[in-house]
Amino acid sequence: MLNTRFKTLVEDFSRHKNIDALLLTNDSNIRYLTQFPACESWALVTKTKAFYITDSRYVLEARQGLKGVAVKEYNHMPCATLLELCKQYKIKRLGFDERYTSFALWKKLKEFFPRKPKLIPATGMVESLREIKDEGEICQIRECLKLHFKAIDFMKKVVRPGLTERQIAVKLEGFVRSHGAEFSFQPIIASGPNSCFPHARFTDRVIRNNENVLLDFGIDLNGYKSDLTRNFFLGRIAPSVRQVFEALTLAQREAISLIKPGVACSTVDQQARKVLRKFKLAKYFGHSLGHGVGLDIHEAPRLSSQSTGLLEEGMIVTVEPGVYLPNKFGIRVEDMVLVTKEGNEVLSGYYHNQ
Amino acid sequence: MLNTRFKTLVEDFSRHKNIDALLLTNDSNIRYLTQFPACESWALVTKTKAFYITDSRYVLEARQGLKGVAVKEYNHMPCATLLELCKQYKIKRLGFDERYTSFALWKKLKEFFPRKPKLIPATGMVESLREIKDEGEICQIRECLKLHFKAIDFMKKVVRPGLTERQIAVKLEGFVRSHGAEFSFQPIIASGPNSCFPHARFTDRVIRNNENVLLDFGIDLNGYKSDLTRNFFLGRIAPSVRQVFEALTLAQREAISLIKPGVACSTVDQQARKVLRKFKLAKYFGHSLGHGVGLDIHEAPRLSSQSTGLLEEGMIVTVEPGVYLPNKFGIRVEDMVLVTKEGNEVLSGYYHNQ
Repeated sequence: MLNTRFKTLVEDFSRHKNIDALLLTNDSNIRYLTQFPACESWALVTKTKAFYITDSRYVLEARQGLKGVAVKEYNHMPCATLLELCKQYKIKRLGFDERYTSFALWKKLKEFFPRKPKLIPATGMVESLREIKDEGEICQIRECLKLHFKAIDFMKKVVRPGLTERQIAVKLEGFVRSHGAEFSFQPIIASGPNSCFPHARFTDRVIRNNENVLLDFGIDLNGYKSDLTRNFFLGRIAPSVRQVFEALTLAQREAISLIKPGVACSTVDQQARKVLRKFKLAKYFGHSLGHGVGLDIHEAPRLSSQSTGLLEEGMIVTVEPGVYLPNKFGIRVEDMVLVTKEGNEVLSGYYHNQ
Repeated sequence: MLNTRFKTLVEDFSRHKNIDALLLTNDSNIRYLTQFPACESWALVTKTKAFYITDSRYVLEARQGLKGVAVKEYNHMPCATLLELCKQYKIKRLGFDERYTSFALWKKLKEFFPRKPKLIPATGMVESLREIKDEGEICQIRECLKLHFKAIDFMKKVVRPGLTERQIAVKLEGFVRSHGAEFSFQPIIASGPNSCFPHARFTDRVIRNNENVLLDFGIDLNGYKSDLTRNFFLGRIAPSVRQVFEALTLAQREAISLIKPGVACSTVDQQARKVLRKFKLAKYFGHSLGHGVGLDIHEAPRLSSQSTGLLEEGMIVTVEPGVYLPNKFGIRVEDMVLVTKEGNEVLSGYYHNQ
């Protein structure tokens, strides 16, 4: 028996794509459908059945953990197992996700399936389901944020001049791990001039007094993720730093105020840039405004000038304007926002940037 | 001026492939060539010049860190920047790595380059250079192992009945991070029956007396990696556990004894299986015997029954036979071996499985 998520997927592909079955090769997509922590595996979804194709390293966990999905173990070559299943279920047109199928794998599939099934590109079918979070998923992300807030509180006690960025990372990681979670991505702990690199990691630099420290990290609990950036200001804050911070806070607030169902993702991005333009800071804001968060730390939708989609109820996005002044400093403010029926809820809202 | 690694690559592709330039989309391959920690970037290598194509998030670090490589910043679309460079340098035939080019990206490149340059599959060109480690790389991996041994010594003091697997993971991670390193992959800490899953992670299970605890982790220092598995036996060791451990140690030793230049990778794998067959344990050894380690935790060559290559001087491989008895226990012994001119050196050899 296929679960509701599988059924929705099958309805979608039966309606929109002329395919009999869909091959999935992305762990997060498979995890979403099966609610099992998929790892280096494939899934085949026919109109009535789902298969999980894995090797000996993972087969025992898969058999114990998967409900309503048949587990098939392959030896050396998942293509052969896939071909057998396609024959058995008379699959004539097999959808595959172009983004998670390398050109090399596509060629190999073509070798295995010289005539049937025909390979049909079918991209983003699971991702589009994943854009809209259900109650259970929203609850999971709230759990991540609860622990995230605790971690920020802990950091308030930890971050002091004299410590290195790495020492702070070690303490933060210990906190996160000992609470049964892990980082959803490699944390960014960037002090003083290091903060001007949007994707800094952490170094052995000693944090000094009167500096800003940018902390961008995320909590992963059972696959779901959080993503927030906070800026710690130690000692006196230079007026230039304060001005940038205030401009960003305003840009973020104005962008968030537009978030509701039906609004274009690009409009939200543009609004933040508009505010920063007034402060002559827009040219230092190089990346896009935000991204969806769920089983992946970056997923659909994107809040970017290039985005073509509209916001919908149930989406969860980051809103993270940043300003990076080369060789001086960088600041980013980042919160997570849920699109609600009437507008939005800042999931990390009651926990302000300090 | 191209460095030696780039020059070797250009010689290779000029000789073997009929291409004017090579597009690289894999971080480890780009890192190998540039010795810069590449992140979400592309590289274009022509016969005389190398380009690093990145976006605003990474451009500042790239400009500061890259030597002899021109940094090109793209806005939204690396394909457009790539096309400009191809025009400027009159590239007619552009090689691309099929394994790191998704079908979707290949289609997009075809759209951008409807006529010229022609896209030519060129797979594994950098990987084959990376198979043979130079003195500097061997030295880097020895450094990883030095810290790895310290971490194992630390673990000997830490792993005790009453602790959970997660508590041990937290302590191990703190040790690794505070020594300026990170894990090269998510560590496996599997106690008692959990050890029967070859790719277990760690859980909240409390370790009991008279159990085995399997620790499989790796150290990452500056991108280079180590990978070892050790088994801790707490209290009394059940005779069945001891027998498996001894069979594996023998299988590993006999497999390693064959390692020298010119020997087929598959032969080494077969030897380990042959020994385990004598103990009627071969059917519980599902994965392949080992893999190369370097900038990636799994890289060429593979020691597997399917491998077609021969060992060469300078390769570094793991040798890791394992036996997993469903719902009982699992043991894996894993060391890292350097192929030398005359034979081999067990890089982790003076540090025995305990």
